[in-house]
Amino acid sequence: MNISVLGCGRWGAFLAWYVSHIGHKVMLWGRANSDNLKELRINRSNQYLKLSRDVELTDSLEKAITFGDIILISISAQKLRDFSKRLKEVGNLENKKYVLCMKGLESSTGKRLSQVFKEEMGFGIKSAVWLGPGHVQDFLKGIPNCMVIGSEDIELTKIIVNALNSDLIRFYYGQDLIGNEVGAATKNVIGIAAGMLDGLGYSSLKGALMARGTREISKLVRAMGGNDITIYGLSHLGDYEATLFSENSHNRQFGEDFVKNIKFEKLAEGVSTIEALSILSSKYNIELPICKALYEVIFNNKDAAKELLDLFLRPVKFEFI
Amino acid sequence: MNISVLGCGRWGAFLAWYVSHIGHKVMLWGRANSDNLKELRINRSNQYLKLSRDVELTDSLEKAITFGDIILISISAQKLRDFSKRLKEVGNLENKKYVLCMKGLESSTGKRLSQVFKEEMGFGIKSAVWLGPGHVQDFLKGIPNCMVIGSEDIELTKIIVNALNSDLIRFYYGQDLIGNEVGAATKNVIGIAAGMLDGLGYSSLKGALMARGTREISKLVRAMGGNDITIYGLSHLGDYEATLFSENSHNRQFGEDFVKNIKFEKLAEGVSTIEALSILSSKYNIELPICKALYEVIFNNKDAAKELLDLFLRPVKFEFI
Repeated sequence: MNISVLGCGRWGAFLAWYVSHIGHKVMLWGRANSDNLKELRINRSNQYLKLSRDVELTDSLEKAITFGDIILISISAQKLRDFSKRLKEVGNLENKKYVLCMKGLESSTGKRLSQVFKEEMGFGIKSAVWLGPGHVQDFLKGIPNCMVIGSEDIELTKIIVNALNSDLIRFYYGQDLIGNEVGAATKNVIGIAAGMLDGLGYSSLKGALMARGTREISKLVRAMGGNDITIYGLSHLGDYEATLFSENSHNRQFGEDFVKNIKFEKLAEGVSTIEALSILSSKYNIELPICKALYEVIFNNKDAAKELLDLFLRPVKFEFI
Repeated sequence: MNISVLGCGRWGAFLAWYVSHIGHKVMLWGRANSDNLKELRINRSNQYLKLSRDVELTDSLEKAITFGDIILISISAQKLRDFSKRLKEVGNLENKKYVLCMKGLESSTGKRLSQVFKEEMGFGIKSAVWLGPGHVQDFLKGIPNCMVIGSEDIELTKIIVNALNSDLIRFYYGQDLIGNEVGAATKNVIGIAAGMLDGLGYSSLKGALMARGTREISKLVRAMGGNDITIYGLSHLGDYEATLFSENSHNRQFGEDFVKNIKFEKLAEGVSTIEALSILSSKYNIELPICKALYEVIFNNKDAAKELLDLFLRPVKFEFI
């Protein structure tokens, strides 16, 4: 099958490597002025991987869209709306299957990425999401993992899983698009909280954070019309190892650096998700104490140690109400 | 209040330290020939803590039972039945509130510890359980955590929480004794699986392990008459940080040593729980794939890498069925 990958950052380049590795014809697109694309063009490799000669590199969106039967998108989540507008201008978008391979919520609206994509591309567009745990570094060492493909159409989900499944990545069918997307985005938020606990010397509260974090997000998903059990699956809880406990997690590191007053190069995606959650909390009338505490710490300069300890030590007596 | 602690191992000695620290009168009991008791008698300390002069040490069960209004029990889980018979012989057991501070299931019957205790002590006995995350080392540094007290009687639960709550340990009311006890015991089993993944170089599968482990135990709890959400609370998921990700966890270390063929001094409690789960799986007609794989690896010499990878890479397509 012909597969195009749009975006050639760490994850995009890995996607191109992976789909080529399992036998597809692959075209990888990057912006004309992208440093990542330049590096790949010169070396056919980046710091993580080496691309096969068969992977075609391009900076032409038109060419990439024309080439792919399945089109994997891996760009910055907050740029998806503008990027979709660009795609729309390129045209020739029909009969393609799009897979959004990012984790986030639109910070200004709280919308899920598949919602943003459909709003811009048209509601008839065939799109799915690819979520769940897995480090690029581990996959390249041959260490397998389980991930999730989900969409609003189980037949589409099955076609994409069938095309992408391998012994390296075992895909499950996403059964709840709302829960999967909100779950994947919010695990970054819980990751920031975990980093703050690590930075404050309270790592052992990460256990309580996992129990209360899943619970809080689960209630939100239910209010949004999703299934409250989804959060306990691969897209959220299943990604905690890679996020709450990994030195490689940018979101966890952001939280740790934040409480240690270490300057960070760029904001973690979870920060945008915290803004989105503030909107969703009001919209659905759901209290999100952990997300709210993080909002206060990051945007309103509240003291992290006090906010987080208050959170876990406040006199709530029943866990499940 | 007068509180007796029966058992002076690491956790028992900590319990004595803690209840004394929050202002109770405390008597700590150990067997007459116990090395732990001997050490405490000579130094009033062990490698973790120093007991206040006010904590009375004894090897007389009769004295300890007579002294305490609340009696905390912290002995080896598999020895609870025999120990309860000894208590029964001592007599004078009425009007006491017993709190079982151990995590396990009886390996020969699959019974919960509170069931074992009541069978031996009489069904009118007032008993509760104390479960959840928390390292002795962290508490002694002043790092707080959240734990759970549960029983079949919410009034009893409230009395005990009221007596034991502090800024160091914030207690929640257990709302499901079955789920809390099964959850606390089985987190050790998931901890052994985590250790095996660590030992095999598959640590990144611990994410999938968390998602699928909680799901598997949750189904069992539901079949046993408990609430399937309890597993996602403090007594099970909330204890994963301390078990699946901690160098201090004996169960995780056991799993890692097992796959590396390193000899271990004594079996981890989770091994007995795996035997108990094999019984419960048959009794309640519930498949427990992770627990079964561990059983095969530990008791039937099956290959750990193959069993565990098969588990995560088998062609199950839906997460939630």
